[in-house]
Amino acid sequence: MDIDSIRTARQAIAPYVPVTPLLAATALSGPSPLLLKCESMNPTRSFKVRGAFNSLRRFVASHPDPSARPPVVTASAGNHGRGMAYAAERLGVALTVFTPATAPRAKRDAIRRHGATLDDASPDYDTTEARAREFARASGGVYISPYNHPDVIAGAGTVALEIVEQCPDVGVVVVPIGGGGLASGIGVALRAMKPGCRLVAVEAAASTPFTVSLAHGRLTTIEPGPTLADGLAGNPEAESMTFPLVQQVVDEVVVVSEAELRDAMRALALEERMIVEGAAAVALAAVLSHHISPVLSASSVEPATDRPTVVVLTGANIDLDVWADVVREPRP
Amino acid sequence: MDIDSIRTARQAIAPYVPVTPLLAATALSGPSPLLLKCESMNPTRSFKVRGAFNSLRRFVASHPDPSARPPVVTASAGNHGRGMAYAAERLGVALTVFTPATAPRAKRDAIRRHGATLDDASPDYDTTEARAREFARASGGVYISPYNHPDVIAGAGTVALEIVEQCPDVGVVVVPIGGGGLASGIGVALRAMKPGCRLVAVEAAASTPFTVSLAHGRLTTIEPGPTLADGLAGNPEAESMTFPLVQQVVDEVVVVSEAELRDAMRALALEERMIVEGAAAVALAAVLSHHISPVLSASSVEPATDRPTVVVLTGANIDLDVWADVVREPRP
Repeated sequence: MDIDSIRTARQAIAPYVPVTPLLAATALSGPSPLLLKCESMNPTRSFKVRGAFNSLRRFVASHPDPSARPPVVTASAGNHGRGMAYAAERLGVALTVFTPATAPRAKRDAIRRHGATLDDASPDYDTTEARAREFARASGGVYISPYNHPDVIAGAGTVALEIVEQCPDVGVVVVPIGGGGLASGIGVALRAMKPGCRLVAVEAAASTPFTVSLAHGRLTTIEPGPTLADGLAGNPEAESMTFPLVQQVVDEVVVVSEAELRDAMRALALEERMIVEGAAAVALAAVLSHHISPVLSASSVEPATDRPTVVVLTGANIDLDVWADVVREPRP
Repeated sequence: MDIDSIRTARQAIAPYVPVTPLLAATALSGPSPLLLKCESMNPTRSFKVRGAFNSLRRFVASHPDPSARPPVVTASAGNHGRGMAYAAERLGVALTVFTPATAPRAKRDAIRRHGATLDDASPDYDTTEARAREFARASGGVYISPYNHPDVIAGAGTVALEIVEQCPDVGVVVVPIGGGGLASGIGVALRAMKPGCRLVAVEAAASTPFTVSLAHGRLTTIEPGPTLADGLAGNPEAESMTFPLVQQVVDEVVVVSEAELRDAMRALALEERMIVEGAAAVALAAVLSHHISPVLSASSVEPATDRPTVVVLTGANIDLDVWADVVREPRP
């Protein structure tokens, strides 16, 4: 995984994925400017469409004869599945998506609408992934992991190329971390292009595999609890390439509580009139709740404090009634 | 009012007003692509910040001595007032804003937060404007109308410069019309730069001064009724320069019902997870409810049907509880 594969990914997805806006969050800014990278405004409403187009375009290129193509299988908390279904429809690829039964309707309905086969019978994310891998094996299909796949990671890394162009002065980038694909891709790009920029990854307290695994120095299985950040809950699979990548390229992993996540969703609604899903709000929550250490990382060449902080709002696929309930809660 | 004043306005506001996103509304597109010009994502959450900075920068330039500056007075349904208050705070100008008592809290609270003096004692928009003009006269202040002012219109026209850059192929631009400043500014710019592009202005059925006045060939007072499009309700003042401008540069004025407006807000929430205010939704409502005639305008040099339609989403300053009630309504 290197910057060249991310630059190549950008060319591959350019016809399908427009540059997303980087908006100033004036009312939410502290001493340094806060900017929102609105991946929630992508087609399919999440950054996952980037890795989807990159991986499927490469799949099509390596299987040029449509009649001889193996079926493609993927597992997803929902957003990767929606992105893959959208890309598969446009590229003419047959796709089966596995999601947990608990995935938001907004995600599952869209997957079906794009013509993919949906299996949403699994009780949780880890079971979803195991069943999808087994289905691919049994059916002779090609399994594309939502995070443990170089083309998916390279696609996610294209977010960083846009951030650096839109804000050359960026001092800190804050991203949610689930399987680690986004953090890995963005980190590889930042290390190559902006070595003085810090990268902070944020977990929801209900599911902290990276915090625990980094402390142990190896991938360690945790028991995920219920969280509004449904897109992040679950364990990276054994031997996931994202673990050593995160060890190398992420400066800090922090954890936010469910209450902080909800506060962040509410703040975005009140101050920016913006709708995001729970997984997307964890990165903003880490900033608003002051979980990000002000110290310099070892890789920093200059103080980052006055330079802008970019928070990646990863997606907006939340059921509206769930969102409305969160936003209606009184502030503590 | 000409294209040069709009180009000059763009330079004047550039340090304060970033280019707003133009996003594809894939799920809402018909045979031709539908693009959303997200003025709702401006600082102050409406396009009005453009005319505010342009008019106040020109005011400051013509009154260079701060101690000898007359006070500035404005009237507004809310968004122009919020934009003016934000610009006045940054440029160090003393400002009094008049709004109706019925203006959304989101608009009135922000005006106060930016340090402007707020008078929100008027029962409706037309009274608001009369009282503001009278207050300016009595206090020796300078009155800046939210629409009937060349600098405000030129500022609004900068939206069109961005649209033409972001979508050189634009075939139709659809805008809400209240006092007519936005339609005038955009129309002047389009006539100069894209004479083959149609401009459609949209009124809410509860307040149709332009539809009635254009039919009569002169400004004709109507009785505004209640509408969710609070930003549009009311009559342009007598002799408003926007009436002859609209006669010249707008190809068609159409009317949408309150139900169509609500449907458009709901569609934006469901398909794009986007929050806009009622006034902003009228333009989208006209497209989704097929009110825009497919015929060519006299000024068209080629068929516009396959080229993209750009809908200007003018603002997002709606109280969240009001928005939630609209979005929760079942579809008919």
